[in-house]
Amino acid sequence: MLGWEDMINVGMIGYQFMGKAHSHAFKDVAMFFQPRLQPVMKVLCGRTEDRLREAAQLYGWEETETDWQRLVARDDLGLIDIAGPNWLHAPAAIAAAEAGKHILLEKPMATSVEDAERMVAAVERAGVVHMVGFNYRRVPAVGLAKRLINEGALGEVRHFRGTYLQDWLVSPDVPLVWKIRRETAGSGAHGDLNAHQIDLARWLVGEIESVVGMSETFIRERPLPDGSGSGPVDVDDATAFLARFRTGALGTFETTRLAPGRKNYNRFEINGSEGSLVFNFERMNELQFYSTQDPAHARGFRTILATESDHPYISHWWPPGHVIGYEQTFVNEIADLLDCIADGKPAWPDFHDGLANQRVLAAVERSVETGRWEQVSA
Amino acid sequence: MLGWEDMINVGMIGYQFMGKAHSHAFKDVAMFFQPRLQPVMKVLCGRTEDRLREAAQLYGWEETETDWQRLVARDDLGLIDIAGPNWLHAPAAIAAAEAGKHILLEKPMATSVEDAERMVAAVERAGVVHMVGFNYRRVPAVGLAKRLINEGALGEVRHFRGTYLQDWLVSPDVPLVWKIRRETAGSGAHGDLNAHQIDLARWLVGEIESVVGMSETFIRERPLPDGSGSGPVDVDDATAFLARFRTGALGTFETTRLAPGRKNYNRFEINGSEGSLVFNFERMNELQFYSTQDPAHARGFRTILATESDHPYISHWWPPGHVIGYEQTFVNEIADLLDCIADGKPAWPDFHDGLANQRVLAAVERSVETGRWEQVSA
Amino acid sequence: MLGWEDMINVGMIGYQFMGKAHSHAFKDVAMFFQPRLQPVMKVLCGRTEDRLREAAQLYGWEETETDWQRLVARDDLGLIDIAGPNWLHAPAAIAAAEAGKHILLEKPMATSVEDAERMVAAVERAGVVHMVGFNYRRVPAVGLAKRLINEGALGEVRHFRGTYLQDWLVSPDVPLVWKIRRETAGSGAHGDLNAHQIDLARWLVGEIESVVGMSETFIRERPLPDGSGSGPVDVDDATAFLARFRTGALGTFETTRLAPGRKNYNRFEINGSEGSLVFNFERMNELQFYSTQDPAHARGFRTILATESDHPYISHWWPPGHVIGYEQTFVNEIADLLDCIADGKPAWPDFHDGLANQRVLAAVERSVETGRWEQVSA
Amino acid sequence: MLGWEDMINVGMIGYQFMGKAHSHAFKDVAMFFQPRLQPVMKVLCGRTEDRLREAAQLYGWEETETDWQRLVARDDLGLIDIAGPNWLHAPAAIAAAEAGKHILLEKPMATSVEDAERMVAAVERAGVVHMVGFNYRRVPAVGLAKRLINEGALGEVRHFRGTYLQDWLVSPDVPLVWKIRRETAGSGAHGDLNAHQIDLARWLVGEIESVVGMSETFIRERPLPDGSGSGPVDVDDATAFLARFRTGALGTFETTRLAPGRKNYNRFEINGSEGSLVFNFERMNELQFYSTQDPAHARGFRTILATESDHPYISHWWPPGHVIGYEQTFVNEIADLLDCIADGKPAWPDFHDGLANQRVLAAVERSVETGRWEQVSA
Repeated sequence: MLGWEDMINVGMIGYQFMGKAHSHAFKDVAMFFQPRLQPVMKVLCGRTEDRLREAAQLYGWEETETDWQRLVARDDLGLIDIAGPNWLHAPAAIAAAEAGKHILLEKPMATSVEDAERMVAAVERAGVVHMVGFNYRRVPAVGLAKRLINEGALGEVRHFRGTYLQDWLVSPDVPLVWKIRRETAGSGAHGDLNAHQIDLARWLVGEIESVVGMSETFIRERPLPDGSGSGPVDVDDATAFLARFRTGALGTFETTRLAPGRKNYNRFEINGSEGSLVFNFERMNELQFYSTQDPAHARGFRTILATESDHPYISHWWPPGHVIGYEQTFVNEIADLLDCIADGKPAWPDFHDGLANQRVLAAVERSVETGRWEQVSA
Repeated sequence: MLGWEDMINVGMIGYQFMGKAHSHAFKDVAMFFQPRLQPVMKVLCGRTEDRLREAAQLYGWEETETDWQRLVARDDLGLIDIAGPNWLHAPAAIAAAEAGKHILLEKPMATSVEDAERMVAAVERAGVVHMVGFNYRRVPAVGLAKRLINEGALGEVRHFRGTYLQDWLVSPDVPLVWKIRRETAGSGAHGDLNAHQIDLARWLVGEIESVVGMSETFIRERPLPDGSGSGPVDVDDATAFLARFRTGALGTFETTRLAPGRKNYNRFEINGSEGSLVFNFERMNELQFYSTQDPAHARGFRTILATESDHPYISHWWPPGHVIGYEQTFVNEIADLLDCIADGKPAWPDFHDGLANQRVLAAVERSVETGRWEQVSA
Repeated sequence: MLGWEDMINVGMIGYQFMGKAHSHAFKDVAMFFQPRLQPVMKVLCGRTEDRLREAAQLYGWEETETDWQRLVARDDLGLIDIAGPNWLHAPAAIAAAEAGKHILLEKPMATSVEDAERMVAAVERAGVVHMVGFNYRRVPAVGLAKRLINEGALGEVRHFRGTYLQDWLVSPDVPLVWKIRRETAGSGAHGDLNAHQIDLARWLVGEIESVVGMSETFIRERPLPDGSGSGPVDVDDATAFLARFRTGALGTFETTRLAPGRKNYNRFEINGSEGSLVFNFERMNELQFYSTQDPAHARGFRTILATESDHPYISHWWPPGHVIGYEQTFVNEIADLLDCIADGKPAWPDFHDGLANQRVLAAVERSVETGRWEQVSA
Repeated sequence: MLGWEDMINVGMIGYQFMGKAHSHAFKDVAMFFQPRLQPVMKVLCGRTEDRLREAAQLYGWEETETDWQRLVARDDLGLIDIAGPNWLHAPAAIAAAEAGKHILLEKPMATSVEDAERMVAAVERAGVVHMVGFNYRRVPAVGLAKRLINEGALGEVRHFRGTYLQDWLVSPDVPLVWKIRRETAGSGAHGDLNAHQIDLARWLVGEIESVVGMSETFIRERPLPDGSGSGPVDVDDATAFLARFRTGALGTFETTRLAPGRKNYNRFEINGSEGSLVFNFERMNELQFYSTQDPAHARGFRTILATESDHPYISHWWPPGHVIGYEQTFVNEIADLLDCIADGKPAWPDFHDGLANQRVLAAVERSVETGRWEQVSA
């Protein structure tokens, strides 16, 4: 039997989309991964008490808490999972760090570079394990992309071509929820979706040096959620930018929430001197790979079904061809995090990655204002 | 809080591939579905005690039991889930029915029509709820196919074209595990994979009237699992058959476990007088649909990403484009089963479907022997 | 400059679909291939004089002839191209052979095995070059498939899975044209489309030993082309069959003209012990190839764009990625034929292939009547 | 029979890739289109006499000419086709216009905006018909895209996302041919490939107002074609830019010749308020279309096989599903041009389009130098 030394009590802030995804991961992780530290779903934290209680019961949390400051102060918690709205990321993460808790933080890191810097300082001071929830790194096909690049299968990387397209804002009737208000979200598609692309680009290709971007809000007024009329939209529907990597590679990035038919089209293509890779989350179990090392008459993009036991994380799941889904990326992520905490090792991507990401986001925003290339501050 | 009247204790036989998939479903179903009856993972049953205990702890079962007959006799269980090898299906299901338990049974129903008939008689006599685990009916894209057919989007169906291809037996080094021994599995690819295709065909098109088939074992000797030399393979690697449906539609079916690159390629295409549908499990979140009702210049197979809240089961999962995986089909299945038990209504597909399926399987096997068309017995 | 010794006068029977395709090929072949013998488009033959003259002018034939018997008797012709309706194939080919002409014959070979046998005997006696127009062998991607199989890339072939689906008869308003009348066409989809599949299967896998089939006519009455009411359809809309190859491989074949959305979906999949191939004419420039020899973590179906100079015929066409179309298959075919005539070598596929094909077609038809497996006569 | 009044003598400059493609089109156009004016392949012009003669004989030109100035001065020619290297476009087009000839000019228009302006002035003064060979407008699937946009199927267009990727320069061994020297080509991938994308964007979405771009030459030295050592590469391997259309739509463009596996991947995606379109030349017979007007449960990207008689140009070619190839785009183009000349109507795209295109190319190049957004001069 497991003893207490093998367990860690978790407190989580947020019970909506991300709260549900993380709850599921905490519930399932031990079954699939046997992490060296098992999570106990101790406290769920949110503001609206009745909905919070309902969520806690449904998802399997033992207790509830409506004050996040009380939550992070609790002695019995070892890990704080911050899955609430973006504006809360900085204060909650700093408080959690100061309370000596390990931290799992949803992306984007923060709503400003300054906040992100303070957050990094806080976790550094506290010496806790910290991770940012760029979950797409934990898609097996994406992990395979990383492996192939590391093996040299692409040679020298020259192009990163990222697009993250959705269509949930195509209708002007979608109300002004927190994700499309600057005050609560920091930015629109840019911070929400480009942040993911930037993370993948940094992981797979390297640091971005400079950027130039453009941004647009096509639908400038939307109904208020409470039905009391309408209000102006103050975040971007779409943001695109060009980038130069430190390695000399070129990057193009584009995100929009107004691309009919694109539901969660998180796609990248990478071209190197010896091969290419293509990934699209809507077919998340597949990675396309082209190699100039194949015989001349038999070259082509291979559609690798990344469900073999040779592929990252898959040995914990099902036999080949029994594809996995979105939610499994969080199980993979939390399994890794728990092992890091157990071993006292740094998690990845961590707050440093979150800060570097935030700096790219900010440089793009500066560029949108100045109309010229901007350096990504170091 | 839930009271005992809202709960049902489950005993499950088997802890391997299907045992893991079902365990996960019992664990997660309440979180995603709020079924009217909640499962308690009470007893896991298997023969090898140490591996059984390990599985029970990992998957979250409260107790273990090494004798399936003792299991089905326990008073505190309401639902018996039979996820063990095929030879056990008949005795366990009949005993469970006689003990008044509701039953979830993995496919194929049995290893003979006679057994399947006795199983139907037993559940009929007992008046319990019974379901057979043809889980592919619970893929949202497949449910959408059913809806489109019911809506008349295909007009009169004329062709069902089913292939279920895998490649895990391509290597002659794969040992003689229970799935490729007649004694334990009944048949090879035929009962394992054609059974799924037959179920989908019956559900989507209707009853099969007559069949003619062929069968082959390409690799006729394989190593014994215990390393003590090798033994003959007495089941089929591949079985294909032609079929006529009662409606007049034509069917072609083919399965093999020796198709390199096909991992779980459970694919069907249906052509009707007004449209066509294509599904392939390896892209389980997609359904292709062609309609002659579209404008002449804008007709084409639509790739419907079946992840909208309009699609079956999806409202319980994630936002559009956040695709689900194989394991979710079992959660969907068990959610439906629990509601049927709660409501005292028949589940689907049930033992009658399992028996009808078995009759098609058997008619194909007769045809392989006689070399001619065989009627599917009524 | 070319002398007369480098030229061959051609007489062609038929000016409709195939007549147009062949005319184009004769017109273009010298430009792209520099064959050792250049065709002169001498005489076009057909029954309806005004339409014939119009076609001849449009396509670039020097003269016209309304009597095919006079055509084949002309002294100045070296090659007779028979692209008229199926019933004409036997008499025209036999007469042409007896007149000592080389022959290009559209598929299917004939409307009966007996006719096909007489045709083979005639060309053998005459010692002329003979070719049957199974043009899909001349698709570069299909030629690449042949090359990969010859190189052993698939190992031992175990499965051939052919489907040839169209939808032009879905509407009951399509009239009773010659292609859907037994008297003029011999059979329906079977002789028209299965003949192509059988040819590819024989070429790529080997001889077919025995078959069992089914056939259906879904729309049993259609308008007469002249508007004078309607008449019964006496050919098949759809025919499917199972096959055993002499090598031990299994084959499944299916054709229909009632599959909405499938326009010219001539698709095959081949599975061997070490790899698989997939081709679909609607994406005729692509071949999919899976190899078990790739590293375990990087296996997948490669989509080979068969437009490289390494691929069959392509060096005569365009740079990589500048895809070719249907009509080019005929140019490739006629280029090969002209070289064979110039060199006095047998062409391929020839009348022996046509006869072997006809025997498979006939065996399937016998099986449809007897309801059992039938041997393909040798 | 056709009289001389129905014919037009053509003189063409260039006999390499484009020369071959245009020759084929002149040869075949009458057969497929019956244009109101039939081309006579009169004179082929090039500098290297022996290769020129060989090409003329192969392609079917009656005469040859090694001096383009003499060519354009010939009285018997009605149409000059300029398919030689880019540096020749301006002088040849201006001379041809001054000689009163109609002009077909390969893209890009010129190597500078100034040249393009002089060319427009020349054809305007001369009153001749002029066309620029942006042949991708004549792909049936692209014409269908235009039709759908015109019909309002996309609503208000918000995004144009163009990529044109090739890989023929991946190897550093490819020599410094004219296409990668500034003196002869003007620019690299930018003028060659972005020019096509810009043309499609202008046609389908509208005029581009401002741009910001980046450009890179990854392989900076290549062997000289004559084997005498190596030389510096002074054109771009890759150029990407962001764009704002006058309509308010956003555009992203990227081209590279160093994307392994991309052979002629000329792809665009357009998102509007009511639908989306995707095209990729490597599957040139297909257009993907998504409509928000489809029923909520049956929406998806339709793969329209643009081979129906309802689709542009297809009635001149083959039955549905019998796909066409690259070369047919030139036949379509020249058929349209000949009808315009016959009818005395303007052709499209014309020199005004070529000039507008050149201005976008130039603005991007300015932006690469200044590092900021540049207006496209009017």
